[in-house]
Amino acid sequence: MRKVDYIIKQISKTNKKNFENYVVTRIWHLLDRTDIKFVTQQFVNRPNGHALTDMYFPQLDIHIEVDELHHKKQQELDINRETDIIQATNHSIERIKITEDIKDINKQIDQIVRKIKKEILNQEKEKTFKPWNYEEEFNPKYYIKKGCLDLAENPSFRKIVDACNCLGQNYKSVQRAYFKSKKYEGYYLWFPKFYNNDEWDNKISDDGKVITEKCKNPDKLGSWYKGMSNNPVKRITFPRSFDNLGFKLYRFKGIFEKDIKNSSMENGVIYRIVKTKFEIK
Amino acid sequence: MRKVDYIIKQISKTNKKNFENYVVTRIWHLLDRTDIKFVTQQFVNRPNGHALTDMYFPQLDIHIEVDELHHKKQQELDINRETDIIQATNHSIERIKITEDIKDINKQIDQIVRKIKKEILNQEKEKTFKPWNYEEEFNPKYYIKKGCLDLAENPSFRKIVDACNCLGQNYKSVQRAYFKSKKYEGYYLWFPKFYNNDEWDNKISDDGKVITEKCKNPDKLGSWYKGMSNNPVKRITFPRSFDNLGFKLYRFKGIFEKDIKNSSMENGVIYRIVKTKFEIK
Repeated sequence: MRKVDYIIKQISKTNKKNFENYVVTRIWHLLDRTDIKFVTQQFVNRPNGHALTDMYFPQLDIHIEVDELHHKKQQELDINRETDIIQATNHSIERIKITEDIKDINKQIDQIVRKIKKEILNQEKEKTFKPWNYEEEFNPKYYIKKGCLDLAENPSFRKIVDACNCLGQNYKSVQRAYFKSKKYEGYYLWFPKFYNNDEWDNKISDDGKVITEKCKNPDKLGSWYKGMSNNPVKRITFPRSFDNLGFKLYRFKGIFEKDIKNSSMENGVIYRIVKTKFEIK
Repeated sequence: MRKVDYIIKQISKTNKKNFENYVVTRIWHLLDRTDIKFVTQQFVNRPNGHALTDMYFPQLDIHIEVDELHHKKQQELDINRETDIIQATNHSIERIKITEDIKDINKQIDQIVRKIKKEILNQEKEKTFKPWNYEEEFNPKYYIKKGCLDLAENPSFRKIVDACNCLGQNYKSVQRAYFKSKKYEGYYLWFPKFYNNDEWDNKISDDGKVITEKCKNPDKLGSWYKGMSNNPVKRITFPRSFDNLGFKLYRFKGIFEKDIKNSSMENGVIYRIVKTKFEIK
């Protein structure tokens, strides 16, 4: 997929949502910067549960929400355990109210475009601005250079091997989803799948702080749970998810540790977040 | 329907046609003039048949066509005898080629936006610019003030009564579709329907110059044709059509006269265009 296709596909997510399409395209066209990434219909974690924002600028931590006047938007979120959901703490949310006057709608959007441009300018002045590099954005080298994985930045990779190599594993290809770190003593790399099937029932809590792992296969249950009661290790965790275009994504969700006290064979093994930032040496 | 709904509905015609949506929204947002009307997917008469343009500016006689690189657009025109088709003689057509580079696409669109702005500026300088007046655009008073109906301008009305009153009939409401003019000696006003049904099979030629009227009811055929052989009258003709949003439209198509020599009971009555402009006294 080329950048042009990515942009067109993001906009096409607003098909049939006509006011969203109007707002998203106006912001994009008036912003007029092909070095600014945007995502439409991004799921975010909120204190009171998940929500969907209509347009999200990852470089700027800015979200746009379109509030339609009459038809109150049906917030039936098409969400499952593998939906990509980001932490949006400290992100700003700009709201556009759809009124009956096209000039008023345009004016509101134009004000938000000015805010966005101002934020870009600020970042450029402070030399913190990172232009959207479509070809390189999931490249492990970016985070190696940066020197850390920080949950607040929502780092993500397209492939397990990329996340592994970001952390010094130096693999050519991988088949598994759980690795002992070659470089970081006491750490494992973990790429759990949060979907319910015949064998497993794994999930992460809405606030992203607790993972529950449950074996459903009675034949494997005993040996699995026994293996779980080993010495605790720290898990650098990248759950598998799917982004809004349906592409696989391994997004860093933090460092997790087993909570054996609260775990049981029946209710599953509990993992709790212990760190949200991981230094890359 | 308010102006904002009209605009949103026009854009929504490009749903699922993602590149068209991109081009149409970029032109609209960068043009940034709510006094410029646009129509998406406008049928036009071309020397070699009908065509569909992706965006049309009636005040400027400018059309936009999006040429997609790979998927050559399926020109399966969803057209019937009541589809609104305009004369586009002397209109200019701007083409945008969808390439693999978003910057290149933007550049092409931006050039066209500059051309459109230049044309508006020209009209403003020459004081020929008429701002889009959404509430008044189908008002007979506009044409009365202008002093003529000119096919080149594609005049149209939403109701038969409006077209009638534009020509001095002074009706409050009407039921019929054929009236003797009160004001213009030798003229009739005619609002034919070009759809094929059990009783009638009427149509207009692709170039808009010949109308054929055919009675299909054998019981009425004789008396109808006898009535047709009266002294010829000039017909100020507004066929019923439906615009791209499905709303009824009576668009002026010219002055027609019977061609009795070439008519017959079996093949129908032929009407030929004799004038494309009608002076309003």
